[in-house]
Formats: sequence, C-alpha cells, structure tokens
Amino acid sequence: MNVIVDLCVVPMGVGVSVGKYVAECQRVLEEAGLEHQLHAYGTNIEGEWDEVFAAIKQCHERVHAMGAPRITTSIKVGTRTDRTQTMQDKVASVRKK
Amino acid sequence: MNVIVDLCVVPMGVGVSVGKYVAECQRVLEEAGLEHQLHAYGTNIEGEWDEVFAAIKQCHERVHAMGAPRITTSIKVGTRTDRTQTMQDKVASVRKK
Amino acid sequence: MNVIVDLCVVPMGVGVSVGKYVAECQRVLEEAGLEHQLHAYGTNIEGEWDEVFAAIKQCHERVHAMGAPRITTSIKVGTRTDRTQTMQDKVASVRKK
Amino acid sequence: MNVIVDLCVVPMGVGVSVGKYVAECQRVLEEAGLEHQLHAYGTNIEGEWDEVFAAIKQCHERVHAMGAPRITTSIKVGTRTDRTQTMQDKVASVRKK
Repeated sequence: MNVIVDLCVVPMGVGVSVGKYVAECQRVLEEAGLEHQLHAYGTNIEGEWDEVFAAIKQCHERVHAMGAPRITTSIKVGTRTDRTQTMQDKVASVRKK
Repeated sequence: MNVIVDLCVVPMGVGVSVGKYVAECQRVLEEAGLEHQLHAYGTNIEGEWDEVFAAIKQCHERVHAMGAPRITTSIKVGTRTDRTQTMQDKVASVRKK
Repeated sequence: MNVIVDLCVVPMGVGVSVGKYVAECQRVLEEAGLEHQLHAYGTNIEGEWDEVFAAIKQCHERVHAMGAPRITTSIKVGTRTDRTQTMQDKVASVRKK
Repeated sequence: MNVIVDLCVVPMGVGVSVGKYVAECQRVLEEAGLEHQLHAYGTNIEGEWDEVFAAIKQCHERVHAMGAPRITTSIKVGTRTDRTQTMQDKVASVRKK
C-alpha cells in the first residue's frame, strides 16, 4: 500500500530551537531512500506504508538518542485504491485548477 | 517504545456519513487488544509502537475493503524516555492543576 | 457557523512538563463558556466559529504570557451544512454501530 | 501576533477528487494577500493571526457554497515571542544543518 505522508516531529524539553532534530529526521529519510520534500511546517514523504512508518519510528529513536526526553509528532497519511498519485500529482492537480 | 496516539481516520468518496467506517476501526483496535478511548474527533490509543501502527495500517486496509477509495488520516504520536505515562495520567495531570 | 474542534496546544522551550499550560487553556475555555471535553491528546470544543477561534487565540496569548516563548498548536475543525451535530452525537453515532 | 500556519481542508460528501475545492482555497488566500505556499499535503500560510484565521473561515464558507456538505480541516499554528521567523527561515534553518 503506497502512502503520501506529512510528518512534523516536535521534540519537547530541549529548548526553543529544534532545527537540528528536524535535520536529523531528514537524514533518516535520505538514508531510507524515501522520496521527501521539506516545507515550512513539516515534510512530505512518499513510499510503501511499512518503509515510511519504519523511518518515522527511527526519527523518534534518533531524536530521543540526541537527548530529547519527549516527542510529539503529527502525521497525515493518505492512501487510495482508485489510482496511483504522487506528491507532484497532488500539487499539479490543484495548480491546474 | 510505548506510545500514546490520537487517531482520526477520514474516508473520502463515500458520502457524508462515515460512522460505520470509524466503528470498524474501533473493532480493529479491540481485536488488537489495544487500550483505546473514542472521543468526538478521534480515538486515543496506548501501546507498543509496532502494535499500534500495525493496527492503524489495518484500519486503512479494512476501510478500503469496505469500499472507501480514498482515506486521509491524522495521527498524533507521543513518546517519552523520562518516564512512563498513560492516557489517564495525562488527563489527571491537567485536571489536578 | 457551528464548529466541532479538536485542540492540542504544545508550548515549547519550557521543559518537558506542560500540564499547567494545558490547564490554563481549560480555564480560557471555561471563561468563554464553551462546551469542551478534555481527552488524553487534546480537547474537543463545540461552538460558534468566531467564539471558538477567539478562545484559541487567547490560549496562545495566555500561554505566551506564562513564559512560553514558542507554541505549536494542532487544530481540527469540522463544519457541516447538511445537519447540526454535537460532540455527543458523533460519539453516539459510532458507538451505535 | 504573527503566525505560521499549515492548512489542510478536506471536503467530505463530494466524491474522491477534491482538487477544485483546494484550488478555491488558494484563491481565498491570494485575495486576502497572504503569503502562502502549496505543498503535497496542505498549504503553509504566514501573516497576522486575525487575517489568517479570517481567510481560513472564508475557505470553509466558500467550499460549503460550492456544494460540500461537510468539511474537516487540519490546522497547525506556530507562534513565538522570542524572535520573528518566516516560513523561509524555518526551511533554511533545517537545510543549513
């Protein structure tokens, strides 16, 4: 099952600047070979359900290992059975209209 | 890694009433033996990361099998390494204050 | 326009325990006279669009005033024109199935 | 109070393709003169709290007026008092690391 995901990892208890934790999550996604696109309030990811969620779990493990005692993460997951759709398709479909 | 999750599954392309799909997701959580609590805009779930996310995947599979061609789901996931905390602890901690 | 909202306010840069900030948001909702229900990962709120969002803005103002330099909040908002529906209706509709 | 928002409007009861409703929301943001950036699972918006939330309300009004009987919307809102930060700053800060 293919998914398009929007991921926003928020480390808590590490002060106000969390850029280095978000950067670490980008590295997890790159190492996993997952298509992804950073935006101003999260990261879009595309791939197989199991691979994408394994990477999200690894983001939590790595961010805890960096010293964050608490993490609250928001995820949006889209799946469809009627047709395949990429992240680019979604943006292009809106732009066309 | 223990998680507290908030799950909101939104089937698309099946009309305006989605209660039966949400009820099916409740059954998935019960069958999985996961602690869970329905509220007016989602369901809180508590358990091991892998078990909780396996159940969420099954929610998507079942809701698609019921005929929904598209699903968009919102998930919040909380993990912490400083101490264990249950869903009840979280609510009680706020109430006490 | 009536709304059902799910609100989750996350103060950042104030350490790992955020219960007192969430409790303050509960007080904002009570003072506003809005129907609301705390759960383990947020608070359900019911009311007129403008009143509900004025209260949410006040939550940010109060939590900043308490010393939190940064806040990231998740909101889900549901509106419908086909019929009126309360928070209790939503839960009851799923339970019945 | 300046905000960075992530907005994802999901019309329900209108079938599986919702691109034209999302496109209408883009028009609302343009008419409001708000800085915004579409991505594959939502739209980032930057501006004053009241202007941004007035635009989000208008998105609901317009999408209902187009015939959608039900809408469920996800919003993330970030505010900070320690310094000003734009959408571009957030992305640049992660990229640099």
